[in-house]
Amino acid sequence: MSGIARHVSQERLCALLAQLGRFGERHDGGVNRQALSPAEIEGRSFLASRARALGCQVALDAAGNMFMRCAGRKDAPPVAAGSHIDSQPAGSKLDGAYGVCAGLEAIAALNDANAVTDFPAEVVVWSNEEGCRFAPGSLGPQAYVEPEALARLLESRDSAGVRYGDSVIEMKAAVKADGRPLGAPIKAFLELNIEQGPVLEGAGLPTGIVSGAQGVRWFRVTARGEAAHAGTTPLAFRRDALRALCALMEKLYALAERHPELRLTVGKIGVSPSSINTIPESASITVDARHAEEPLLDACEALLREYCAVPRHGCAVALEPLMCMRTTCFDERLRRSLRAASDALGLSSMDLVSGAFHDAVHLARHCPSAMLFVSSERGVSHNPTEHTDPALLAAGARVLALAIAEQAQEN
Amino acid sequence: MSGIARHVSQERLCALLAQLGRFGERHDGGVNRQALSPAEIEGRSFLASRARALGCQVALDAAGNMFMRCAGRKDAPPVAAGSHIDSQPAGSKLDGAYGVCAGLEAIAALNDANAVTDFPAEVVVWSNEEGCRFAPGSLGPQAYVEPEALARLLESRDSAGVRYGDSVIEMKAAVKADGRPLGAPIKAFLELNIEQGPVLEGAGLPTGIVSGAQGVRWFRVTARGEAAHAGTTPLAFRRDALRALCALMEKLYALAERHPELRLTVGKIGVSPSSINTIPESASITVDARHAEEPLLDACEALLREYCAVPRHGCAVALEPLMCMRTTCFDERLRRSLRAASDALGLSSMDLVSGAFHDAVHLARHCPSAMLFVSSERGVSHNPTEHTDPALLAAGARVLALAIAEQAQEN
Repeated sequence: MSGIARHVSQERLCALLAQLGRFGERHDGGVNRQALSPAEIEGRSFLASRARALGCQVALDAAGNMFMRCAGRKDAPPVAAGSHIDSQPAGSKLDGAYGVCAGLEAIAALNDANAVTDFPAEVVVWSNEEGCRFAPGSLGPQAYVEPEALARLLESRDSAGVRYGDSVIEMKAAVKADGRPLGAPIKAFLELNIEQGPVLEGAGLPTGIVSGAQGVRWFRVTARGEAAHAGTTPLAFRRDALRALCALMEKLYALAERHPELRLTVGKIGVSPSSINTIPESASITVDARHAEEPLLDACEALLREYCAVPRHGCAVALEPLMCMRTTCFDERLRRSLRAASDALGLSSMDLVSGAFHDAVHLARHCPSAMLFVSSERGVSHNPTEHTDPALLAAGARVLALAIAEQAQEN
Repeated sequence: MSGIARHVSQERLCALLAQLGRFGERHDGGVNRQALSPAEIEGRSFLASRARALGCQVALDAAGNMFMRCAGRKDAPPVAAGSHIDSQPAGSKLDGAYGVCAGLEAIAALNDANAVTDFPAEVVVWSNEEGCRFAPGSLGPQAYVEPEALARLLESRDSAGVRYGDSVIEMKAAVKADGRPLGAPIKAFLELNIEQGPVLEGAGLPTGIVSGAQGVRWFRVTARGEAAHAGTTPLAFRRDALRALCALMEKLYALAERHPELRLTVGKIGVSPSSINTIPESASITVDARHAEEPLLDACEALLREYCAVPRHGCAVALEPLMCMRTTCFDERLRRSLRAASDALGLSSMDLVSGAFHDAVHLARHCPSAMLFVSSERGVSHNPTEHTDPALLAAGARVLALAIAEQAQEN
């Protein structure tokens, strides 16, 4: 089995990525292939026929996740690899798609090596990861690991009022595949992705073993003061809502400065009435806080709660939690397997924590899961200019193929 | 002449304010009487006929300013009082209108007293003070004191593309009055207004002698960084444009804290792409700085220039001056006259600096000018709920009438 990596073909992998990239292709070289759009459904049909040509059986579950299974000697839970093929409106050809195509390349390599695994090897297209068309993101994996949430999740609607559940029915009619129950056991899940961040490139390393995923908390903070004339209102009479939030932002940035692993972003800010010579009556910001350990996120939330507990600069300040996702720790045994495979191929790796959302974060609640990153140029992602060198894409696929082959053998 | 105040009638003044307030009246009790709108033109016609009934001669200049003159014994430059009758879209019945109506009430009082002044007494409706329909504000007085700017100012257009100069022609056809050259000499100009701020109310005083007007400087500051993923981008890699401006805002607020007479407002703020989980690529704020003395405004501008001279948090920061209006010092002799009149009527006064724009600020470049404020409730202005007690409105009109009568006599 250790020779499987030799059979991974950079040319075949890149050709598959390019073929899949034509579904929803943008003029700037990126893709707009939002979840269950015609382009994404055509992309699934293309992958399903490719998988069948590799001897796989294709199945769909009630949440729209698609499974391409290469049978093993045993009829047992599969070793699964995969990611998603939906994209942001201005997305790229790699994010998500790379993990799926590399999984199919691993199966092609197994075929070429005439290798039969003990456990089935499976490639999964998880449905609706991005969350830009239907909220929440990773809707498919969430329903898979928590089937009781399915009914609620199917009711999600896009901005045109289209129901997620109806789009799944439409997709099933086009892709034509067997059924698969939600929550069916999986022996191990491996997700390969480009890093979507600059850490590996900065460290000069090709691969990263993802130890876990940051916890994420989203908040909205709103201050309410009083609009007044910028020229006639003395300092003591001002109830400036922007000033009330500016002081909070400085405290948040200072916290991030003391804890560089805390990822803290104020991504949106607005004031009303938004006039050059009127003191802002109300102001609001969003806060995105991420860290690999809950105590730091607790400290960040405590800072927010303390700040909002009393009026600031004459303004009432209100805190509204919008989302909370706990930290994830990936399976130690699978991480060891990915590290060993990387070492065996002469690829220096480092451990790192994922700051982005991934399907594996949800799968980790269901089965042993882990992730491998390859370095991505300048860390640019969710952007048509996202790029990773083809040789490095092939190297990542070799690590994945090795780890799948190892995990799919009886110990 | 000192008995003139007895002839000022609160009832007549308030009736005139109420009648003028019907032109452009809003359902909430405020007015929407924007410059040279049909409502404002009808309001001018109403005032012109009222002035003629008081024996005044009505004249219009090329910039749309309207002069209502009560002849004196001498054909000489007039003692003028006045303000404007145009309003914000959600304006009130007092701001501007009060100064004009109080001027006409002073002339009615002179008539009732059978008093004839040495110099003509004149009430002026300055055109387009608010600047919300045609920019800049105080367009009329600016053209009056700097006739060479007329041609440029007449080209100002409102949001529907209507030219200011065409609206003046339309107004002249409706009001029908004599011509008056721009820049004609004025012996003294007095402007009465509600304070539009909370200082007098806070001090428990009915009247304020305005020593001058704050200088005003407007800026836009823009920071340009790089958009990046909120979860995957470490602190050292961030070029957060909002963070770059937040630190500047804190420096500005700290400067205002050290110099409470500095009026400093960040009234607008925006970021792009404005997404909860994306680091802002660009951010911009507006800065409105006002102070009665230029050195403090110079210090504020120096702080901005120093901050923008080097990259901050990895972002280039650019400073764009939008407007600069020098400080104004009103005429000492006229201020003494207003203070003496206030004292003579038993009204305690204080000196204060105006933070708002007023027609008198422009007239001060042309002739001896001064302003009187009466206290306004909670300092609310540019708002339909703006309010001053009618007895206090009458008291202000008495001070104005006394000062006009004094200034219009040969010394």
